[in-house]
This record gives sequence, C-alpha cells and structure tokens, in this order.
Amino acid sequence: MDLRIDRESPVSLYLQISGGIKQLILAGRLPDGFLLPPERRLADSLGVNRTTVVNAYQQLKADGFVDAHVGQGTMVLPRRPKEPEGKPAQPLAWRQLAREGAAREPDPLVRDLLALTERRDVISMAVGLPAPEMLPLDAMGRIHARLLAERGAEVFLHSPTEGVTAFRDAICRHMVSRGIQCTVPEVLVTSGSQQALDLVARAYLAPGDVVVVEEPSYFGALETFRVAQARLMGVPADGDGMRTDLLENLLARQRPKLIYTLPTFQNPSGSVLSLERRRRLLELAYRYQVPVVEDDPYSDLRYEGQTVPSLKALDPSGYVVYLSSFSKILFPGLRLGWIAAPRPVIRQLALTKQSVDLHSNTLGQWMVERFITEGLFSRHLEASRTEYARRRDAMIEALEGEAAEGFTWNRPQGGFYVWCTYPETVSPSALMQEAAQEHVAFLPGGASFVGDPGQNHIRLNFTYCEPARIREGIARLMRAYRAVAAKPRSAERLQGGTPPIV
Amino acid sequence: MDLRIDRESPVSLYLQISGGIKQLILAGRLPDGFLLPPERRLADSLGVNRTTVVNAYQQLKADGFVDAHVGQGTMVLPRRPKEPEGKPAQPLAWRQLAREGAAREPDPLVRDLLALTERRDVISMAVGLPAPEMLPLDAMGRIHARLLAERGAEVFLHSPTEGVTAFRDAICRHMVSRGIQCTVPEVLVTSGSQQALDLVARAYLAPGDVVVVEEPSYFGALETFRVAQARLMGVPADGDGMRTDLLENLLARQRPKLIYTLPTFQNPSGSVLSLERRRRLLELAYRYQVPVVEDDPYSDLRYEGQTVPSLKALDPSGYVVYLSSFSKILFPGLRLGWIAAPRPVIRQLALTKQSVDLHSNTLGQWMVERFITEGLFSRHLEASRTEYARRRDAMIEALEGEAAEGFTWNRPQGGFYVWCTYPETVSPSALMQEAAQEHVAFLPGGASFVGDPGQNHIRLNFTYCEPARIREGIARLMRAYRAVAAKPRSAERLQGGTPPIV
Repeated sequence: MDLRIDRESPVSLYLQISGGIKQLILAGRLPDGFLLPPERRLADSLGVNRTTVVNAYQQLKADGFVDAHVGQGTMVLPRRPKEPEGKPAQPLAWRQLAREGAAREPDPLVRDLLALTERRDVISMAVGLPAPEMLPLDAMGRIHARLLAERGAEVFLHSPTEGVTAFRDAICRHMVSRGIQCTVPEVLVTSGSQQALDLVARAYLAPGDVVVVEEPSYFGALETFRVAQARLMGVPADGDGMRTDLLENLLARQRPKLIYTLPTFQNPSGSVLSLERRRRLLELAYRYQVPVVEDDPYSDLRYEGQTVPSLKALDPSGYVVYLSSFSKILFPGLRLGWIAAPRPVIRQLALTKQSVDLHSNTLGQWMVERFITEGLFSRHLEASRTEYARRRDAMIEALEGEAAEGFTWNRPQGGFYVWCTYPETVSPSALMQEAAQEHVAFLPGGASFVGDPGQNHIRLNFTYCEPARIREGIARLMRAYRAVAAKPRSAERLQGGTPPIV
Repeated sequence: MDLRIDRESPVSLYLQISGGIKQLILAGRLPDGFLLPPERRLADSLGVNRTTVVNAYQQLKADGFVDAHVGQGTMVLPRRPKEPEGKPAQPLAWRQLAREGAAREPDPLVRDLLALTERRDVISMAVGLPAPEMLPLDAMGRIHARLLAERGAEVFLHSPTEGVTAFRDAICRHMVSRGIQCTVPEVLVTSGSQQALDLVARAYLAPGDVVVVEEPSYFGALETFRVAQARLMGVPADGDGMRTDLLENLLARQRPKLIYTLPTFQNPSGSVLSLERRRRLLELAYRYQVPVVEDDPYSDLRYEGQTVPSLKALDPSGYVVYLSSFSKILFPGLRLGWIAAPRPVIRQLALTKQSVDLHSNTLGQWMVERFITEGLFSRHLEASRTEYARRRDAMIEALEGEAAEGFTWNRPQGGFYVWCTYPETVSPSALMQEAAQEHVAFLPGGASFVGDPGQNHIRLNFTYCEPARIREGIARLMRAYRAVAAKPRSAERLQGGTPPIV
C-alpha cells in the first residue's frame, strides 16, 4: 500500500492518510474486500501515533469506503451495484432536492399582491420606497462623469469586502449627524439593509436560537430569521415602541441570542421607542448579556418633534449592532446599506460577506461617497423631509375626510408609514380582494407579526405617491372598506373570535 | 384565562393558543405556579380538538414557560432569578457568540499574501483579474449618460430579484454565442459568480451533504461549500480535466448532492475537460441522478484550438446548473454574474436570493445590457483575446528562458492561468516568503485541494500585468525559487515525505 504523508502540510495527518487510502480505492488499486493493515502496524511504518490511524480508519468508515469488525480487521467495501446503462435520462426531481429550511414559495395571496403593485393603473401604498421624482438624477450624472475622469477604471474594479475606505469614512461623517461616533474599522458596507440582516443571521444564528422581536416588526427581517431557523419570540409594542416591561419578563425566562428592534419610525407602525424605554432596553441587554440589533433606516426623516438618540448613541458598552441603508433616502436600486458595530463583529461579518458576494458594487459606493462629501446629501435630505411631511399630511387629511366608522390610524412624526387598525368583524382577505378591484394596494398587517396579530391592521406608505394620488388612493381604499364592512364575516369566524372564558 | 382564537388566521390554532398563554404569562396575568386548565377542559371551552391543546402545552413546555407532571397538571414556571441591578455593563464576548460553522479567520499566511498583492511595488500574478487598462471606460461613460437621459430614475430603482428582464434577455443572446439555448425564465442574475455559488449552496446543501469536486478546484467554491458544512470529496484531474473513470467509482459508493466542475480553462489548472469525458460525466450524472454545477467564467477567452461544447449545451435532460460571470471580461467591481438552469431551480434560487439581498444593483445590469445589445461586448471580447494571448505567450517565453531545473508548467489554450509544478524537496512556505522578499506574488496551490495535493503547485495569472511586467515577475519568481531550492527541506520533512511501503 503506497501511502505518502507530509508533516509540513496544513492538512492534518489523519486526513492525509484517509485521503490517500480513498484515492487508492477509487483508482482500483485496493480491490473490494482488501484488508487494510492493522492500525498499529500502519502507525509504526508511517511513524505516526496509533490514534492518528484509528481516526483515519474511522473517517473512511464514515465515508462509506470501508467497514470494520472486531477480530476481522478493516475491509474495503464493495461498491454499489451498477444500474443498467443506456436508458434515457430521467428528469431530476429538483423540488425534492432543496434542503430543509430553504426559502419557500410565498403565500399565493402575497404573490398576487406583489404582482398587483407593479401595474401602473394601481395606486400602490404597499411599497417602502422613496419618491422616484425626488431622486437627484442630474447630480448623479455629473458625479458619474467626474468619477470616470478622475478615478478611471478604479470605480469598476474590485474593492475591499468591508467597503471602499473613502465611502466608509463618509458614512462615519454622516453618522455624526445622527449623534453616533464611529470609526472606519467599525463600519461594514452591505448590499442593502437586507444583506445586513442576512449577514447577522448567518454569522450568529444557529437553528433553534431565540430571537426577540417587537410585534409588529419588519416582515423581511422576520423572514430572514425564519430562514436561519431561529425561534422568534414577540414582545408587544404600543405607541411608544416595544413594551420593555414585557421584555424583562421574557429575558428572565429565555436566553435569546439577540434582540431585534426598529426603535425610530418603526416599520410598519411608525412608532418611536421612548427615551425612557431605550434606556431600559439597554439596561436589560446589559444585565442579561444579550446583543441588540438596531435597524434604523428612517431616523433621518423626522418631520416634527424632538429627536430621540439612537440605541447605538446611548450604548457605551458595545452591545448594539446598528444597521442602516441608503435605499429609503437615495437610490434603492444601488443596493447600499451599512453596519456599524464593535470591531470583532465587523470582522466576523466581513469574513461572512466574503464568501457571500466578495464585496458590494464599487461604482455605487463611489457615487454615494461623492454625493455625501460634496454636501449634496444633507441638502437632499432637507428637500425629502419637506416633501414627505406634505405627503404624510395629505394622507392624514384624506383619512380624516374619508374614513369609515371603526377604521383608525396613527400620525407618525417621521418615516414612511401610517399604521391603521380596523375591527375584527371585517375580513382582511376580503378587504384585500375588494381593494384590488378598486385598483389600490396596501401591506396587510398579518405578515408583520410572529403569531396572531389579534387585531386587523394595514400599513400605508405615504412617500412613494404624490399627494393627489394619495388622496385618490385613500378614497378607493375606503370604498373597498365600506363594501367589505357591509358584509359581516361568517358566523363560524365570529364564534371563533369570541371564545369563552375558561 | 382570557384566550382568543381566530379560525380564519393563517397561524395554526395550537400556536395561537400557546402564543396567547405566553402573552398572559409575560404580562404577569398568570403568576408563577399558576395551574393551567386540564387539556380536555380548555379544548372543550375553545371548541377545538384535545390534540390541539396538547400541542400548545408542549410548545409552552419546549419554550420554558411551563412544566408538566403526571397527576399535577401543567404549571407556570417561575422566572430566572434576577441579577443585581446597577453594576456596569460587562463587555460582550462577541467571538464566542458566532455560530458554529460561521466563516473563520483565514490562515495568517494567506492574509499576509493578500496584503502583499495590494502593494504597488509588488508584481502580482496571484489575482484572477482582467487587465484594468483594457476596460472600455469611455464606452461605459457614454452608456451611462444615455441611460440617464432615456430611462431616468428607473436605473436607480428596485428591479426584480431574478434580474432586469432586458438584461436577462441580453444574457440569453450572449449564451447563443456559447452554443447554449435558454430563455429568460431560465436565467437568474447574481451579484457576481461568488453569490451564484453561495445561492446554490444555501438552497440545496444541508450539513453533511457530499459535494464532488475535481482536484485542484476553485478555492472560493471549496470555501463556500465548507461554510455550508458539506463534505467535500475530491476526484483527481489531469491535463484533460476531471478523471471520469475515478468519478464513476466514487458515485458508485456515495450519493453526492451535487458535482461541481470547471470544465473549460479550469481555475487553477487551465485544463479543458475533453469532449469524451464531458459525455461520460453527463452519462454518470444521469445514471446516478446527481445534478452538475458547471462553473464557466472563462470559456469566451479561447486563444487557440477547437471549441469544446459546454456541459450545459450537451445536456438535454436539465441536470446542469450553469454559472458564469462578467467579472473576468468586463468589470469585476460591478458584481454581475448569472445562473442558467431549469425553471424550478431558478425559482428556488430566486426565493433564496430575495432574503439575501433582494436583487443585484440595477444600474450595473442596465449598463451591461446596453454594452451587449450595442454589439460592444463581442468587439471587446475580440480585443481581450488578442491581448491575453500575447500575455500568455510572454509568460510562457519568460518561463522557458528563466525556469530552474525541476520547475514545470502547462500551456493553456485559454483562460487566465498557467499552472506550475515543482519538486517536493522545495518548501512551499519558504518559496512564498522568498518571493515576498523579491516583491512578486502568486497563488500557492495548496488551497485548491480538498486533501493533500501530493505535489507542490503554484497558479500564475497572465492577464492582469502587461508583458514587460510579466517578464520581470517571472525573473523575480525564479530568483526566489533558486534561492529556496538551494536550501533542501528539513530532514524530518523528507522523512515524512518518503514513507515506507506497508
């Protein structure tokens, strides 16, 4: 048996031995039924420990190449019987090949809804998008031309996994305007905020880990945590954000891997976590040693009221992993977001990102870097705030004028969304279908909850459509609502909805 | 106990019940030690099956909220004891929080090598990059300006997860030039070829699944499969690619989840899988019902010899998942690659991509679409082939003039790389360190193998540097090689390298 080992190789000795024997078997040089030498004899002749050979033989057994019986030694196993040759190829059963836990088809209802929002004759208040006509196209054209002239091919070449250094530096400068101090090594550029969530999940969540979320929460994050096979535990939220009194009870019973929260202009509810609760949340995180993932895409878009510091700004102890994005303010199609976190976290996430997509697109990073550094970003923010405040007011006024009895809503101080509540006597699926007939779309609230929402909700976006279209959209929505509310839900449903006290 | 259930909710009844009881416990309305009602009584009063309540109580027990003992009923558990308040926050042990199997720090040697290739005074033949001075910058500038004028904000907005439809169509047209027929629904745009590999791994590989690879293979793919906790099984390759005779033996013994191969101008060896072996590989895949992942970033770059059809072109039965990329021919920093595969595969991968990064950057897709549709791509390919053939010849000539005794190499008909072999008496790590002293970098062969390479190899790239720099690089490499070869490896190593026959 011709075996070679290399003591300087990074491959461990037992794997070298099992690998060498595998090659001999595959090459047909060790026939079926061949008895491998006893462990001690092979160990002696290779000059290695007996345990090394024992491990090598165990590996071969685990891989199905050999079998061992006491008193009989270790024997090369015969290969599986050949199937007849020459028959036509059977089609592969691709659907059965997907691994357990792989992403699944969404609810057909959701698919239909998504298809609906893409039709031009439908007024969509379902999306989470900035106003396309607000995007600074001309400025981007000028920046692009200048970048090509000044930097040449560099803007089209590979860039570091952590992000273009100048762009990370610009992000740090922008973070100062949010009251957050951080340095370049504490920032990782991501391909949008969705990738930030996915990287956190991939680096830190094992199947079965508990993740605490407020309810309602961002449905895309819930989906990412579900794909990571985490166990989601919801903490109810009210107009002041996550109920930290209930969080304490949960932390006292569980050991969550992390707490995920959107404290500012929350998606979908628009609420802001109060300063008192922010401090309480951090105290609890410190006491129970749980990291906090703060998702903050909207805090630049405050239309009125006092700024509340982010959790990241309130955390001197490095428990907060802060996520944000340019997709809500600039260009969603560029796919650029970022993570600000302690260095060991950035390092771990960068290692993960490397095997995921190497790095985010270089050109986009340079374009946004220029946009920030030339002072255009803060001017653009100012203009966005003015316009979006006007659109929010248009939506609230339209609701005040049109809303039916029992249909209620909040008035957010910033962000993208108005959150509405309606009685359980009105069927959510019937409302969605009726709204589709009226050519208006919204996000149904159900997907934002871990369990049963208990009430009926919808999320309405006010940034994407112009005020006139918002007014028309609300009028259509209310026509649909009145039509559905006029037909009460089935008797069975009402019975289920008012169960007896036990 | 005030519990509500909703028979129309998509949440199953048992989860509604367990969720409702959790909320009551967390709100303090069911105190420690509270006895839940017997299962049958709760089932009767809610009008549900007894099994539903049994499942709900089991869920509560699994989540640590209650405990059950025969004869005593189901009791609310006390929460964990409070830790003292007011002490300063302990820093989190972030490194311990990473999940098992998360990406790890690379070998410090590899890190140093990567840092080295970024220094301007180092001649890097380690990278896998196109020549930066060949990139069609002016054309891109013109295309960008025209796109902004013609399409406006659209190029900066969200686009479908599967990719911009016009871009997918352009990819299909380009595939025809490779002899492959496919339609838009069979194409998925990815954020570079690395993401394509990662999506396949995430959708199809469970921990412990066997993946068959040729040896040597692309180290980035091996790393992605390792992160997915797959078991890699190597099949040796020679100048004609993967040895399909050995593959058959392996398939006869194992049930691999997939076969991963780079049949054309392979990375790192530059070899081409012969037509006969291509047919044999597909026959074996059909017989043993194993999908084949064909990674094909280089086949457009043939400098001489007869074109060999891709596996995808030879496969009428839909077993091949085909990956390719624009990063080797156009702009690596745009991060654009694609997958061509049967529709159920594209659907599964698109669902996966949605929770990973929503979609790839829109602007880049439109730019490359224009570049292809305006006929610039085929002209650019032509120019690249001419220039890269010249650079390959420069490298081969330099090797012929400079190479030391025992140092050998192949002459690839296309692609990016020359693959070199040298005797085991020369230490790979000593060679790398000596080369660093000489300011020249290459990719050591070890990372391209699953197990022990058995021989010493290095991969040299000839596309990135201009011919004069290639010649200087080979001169430096050979100075380093001669210096190391003059000092034989340690006696212990040589002993380890020539083990006895057993």
